[in-house]
Amino acid sequence: MTAITTDLQAQKVAIEKFLETKALEGFPSNLYDAVHHIMTLDGKRLRPMMVLTCAGAYGIPEDKAMSAAISIEVFHNFTLVHDDIMDKAKIRRGKITVHEKYGIDKAIVTGDAMLPHSVDLLIHGNEEKAGTLLNCFNQMAKEVMEGQQYDMEFEDRKDVKVDEYLNMIKLKTSVLFGSACEIGAVLGGASEADRKNLYDFGLYSGLAFQIMDDYLDTFGDENFGKRIGGDILLNKKSFLLVSAMQNANAEQKVRIETLFNEKDEEKKIASFQALYREMDIPKIALDTMEEFHDKSVNAVKATSLTDDAKERIIQLGEVMLKRTK
Amino acid sequence: MTAITTDLQAQKVAIEKFLETKALEGFPSNLYDAVHHIMTLDGKRLRPMMVLTCAGAYGIPEDKAMSAAISIEVFHNFTLVHDDIMDKAKIRRGKITVHEKYGIDKAIVTGDAMLPHSVDLLIHGNEEKAGTLLNCFNQMAKEVMEGQQYDMEFEDRKDVKVDEYLNMIKLKTSVLFGSACEIGAVLGGASEADRKNLYDFGLYSGLAFQIMDDYLDTFGDENFGKRIGGDILLNKKSFLLVSAMQNANAEQKVRIETLFNEKDEEKKIASFQALYREMDIPKIALDTMEEFHDKSVNAVKATSLTDDAKERIIQLGEVMLKRTK
Repeated sequence: MTAITTDLQAQKVAIEKFLETKALEGFPSNLYDAVHHIMTLDGKRLRPMMVLTCAGAYGIPEDKAMSAAISIEVFHNFTLVHDDIMDKAKIRRGKITVHEKYGIDKAIVTGDAMLPHSVDLLIHGNEEKAGTLLNCFNQMAKEVMEGQQYDMEFEDRKDVKVDEYLNMIKLKTSVLFGSACEIGAVLGGASEADRKNLYDFGLYSGLAFQIMDDYLDTFGDENFGKRIGGDILLNKKSFLLVSAMQNANAEQKVRIETLFNEKDEEKKIASFQALYREMDIPKIALDTMEEFHDKSVNAVKATSLTDDAKERIIQLGEVMLKRTK
Repeated sequence: MTAITTDLQAQKVAIEKFLETKALEGFPSNLYDAVHHIMTLDGKRLRPMMVLTCAGAYGIPEDKAMSAAISIEVFHNFTLVHDDIMDKAKIRRGKITVHEKYGIDKAIVTGDAMLPHSVDLLIHGNEEKAGTLLNCFNQMAKEVMEGQQYDMEFEDRKDVKVDEYLNMIKLKTSVLFGSACEIGAVLGGASEADRKNLYDFGLYSGLAFQIMDDYLDTFGDENFGKRIGGDILLNKKSFLLVSAMQNANAEQKVRIETLFNEKDEEKKIASFQALYREMDIPKIALDTMEEFHDKSVNAVKATSLTDDAKERIIQLGEVMLKRTK
């Protein structure tokens, strides 16, 4: 185990402890059970780690950045509660989803209360920086909703281009990572240039993360515990599928259309995997992922931070891509 | 027409103009149609008027308080979009509801984007007061969700007490009026004591307003355009019904239970009206309303404002209760 993962393990413990103690203070009591349910599901806590790590790079101790870090995690979980309603998902991280357990109406209201609560946590103790923090946070929050809407619109479209897909995941997923890093930088009193570079680190890390996630869903190692082929069975417009649909020749287009209706699950997964390999999609995905990862590293290198601080942030990016054990 | 209603008419025109021009700048483009639909439905715009009137009492010109005023209106409409989903409402202010027109998923996401947008509007131009404004706003937002949850829980209960009902409408409806007034006061640089008193003015006005609304739904004048008996037909737990259920003797309890299942709409409305009159519920409602109205007036009187400014705010409260034409 390297130094960074030991540090992150300790960070995760501190994050979980805060979640179980102060994080939900002041939350409406009649919605507490629902918010506690979602916030205590096992998660990687990558987003609050980004806040803590970026703030820490400027010498801000963990406890001074924790409330803002948890704010980002509460916001993230608010989007999960509402997304799960829209996706009609029954299971999240191995547990029952909020709307399945408490009903759709309560899940909507719980999410609605989580958003102002996350704003509360963001400015708690940081009132003098509230304007700057809020500008960053609100812009991000609206972009996440824009991305969610594109994601839903894409479900009914057969002509989604790779560029459109990348824009969608940028909005739906990556700006939250970018914002987490920028908020850490703001807490640290970073320069405008550093803020922008750390935002870019988060943004590109998020893009690389999502493409890696898409790749592993189809070509991952089942020994890591995640079932392979989930996206394929749902005909989900992942990076792999969108790339394949854009690059397919006439014969391949027909095969894809036919496979959408394949009922034999094992056959469907194996056939899509074979088609993707034939079209070189795994390499395209990994190359695109590497490209974003390189941009994320370059963004950190462009900051005014010390080499040690830069290295720590870059390593967090590596952890996100599961390349550091 | 008195001076106050002429002023408010001009305020309404300015509010509507801002809504059609700057209010939705920066809103996600793929959700614009849905947010424009709800924000441009005909409304009384009482909440932004409260912000403008209270800020104006401290000499803040309308254009300096407009963004914060619209913030409150956007927040209010966000709650309407989500409430209409939960209520399965098809019509709002004579027009189709957002979820009926654009689908439930888009309505959820549109509401989710309206909340950070309302925060954006609140702090726009008021960055130096962002911390104070946000503390007030977030507390209110969470209380509104708490109230909404109680409202939903009450639907399935037969033992809701008047005090519980009053607490519910305080949270669901009145704190937003209170917060609107307090935000106006904060913009005006009011003292803590004035802020508290103007919050109380809004809060008690909101309570009086909701009870008046309940009263008029059953005992209003159909010439004013609103159909009488809507709450009765829905067995809605209004102030009238909750008061009747709490005060009913054994025989009256049986009559109420029987009337819940009455299929003849005219008979159901007339029978409930007769029962309420027999139990003196109209007087109880109007007395309670007056009590809250008196408290709202006393709160304004306790401020440090000039008599003219006090009078203007008190008159806005009268307009809310439809006593000033």
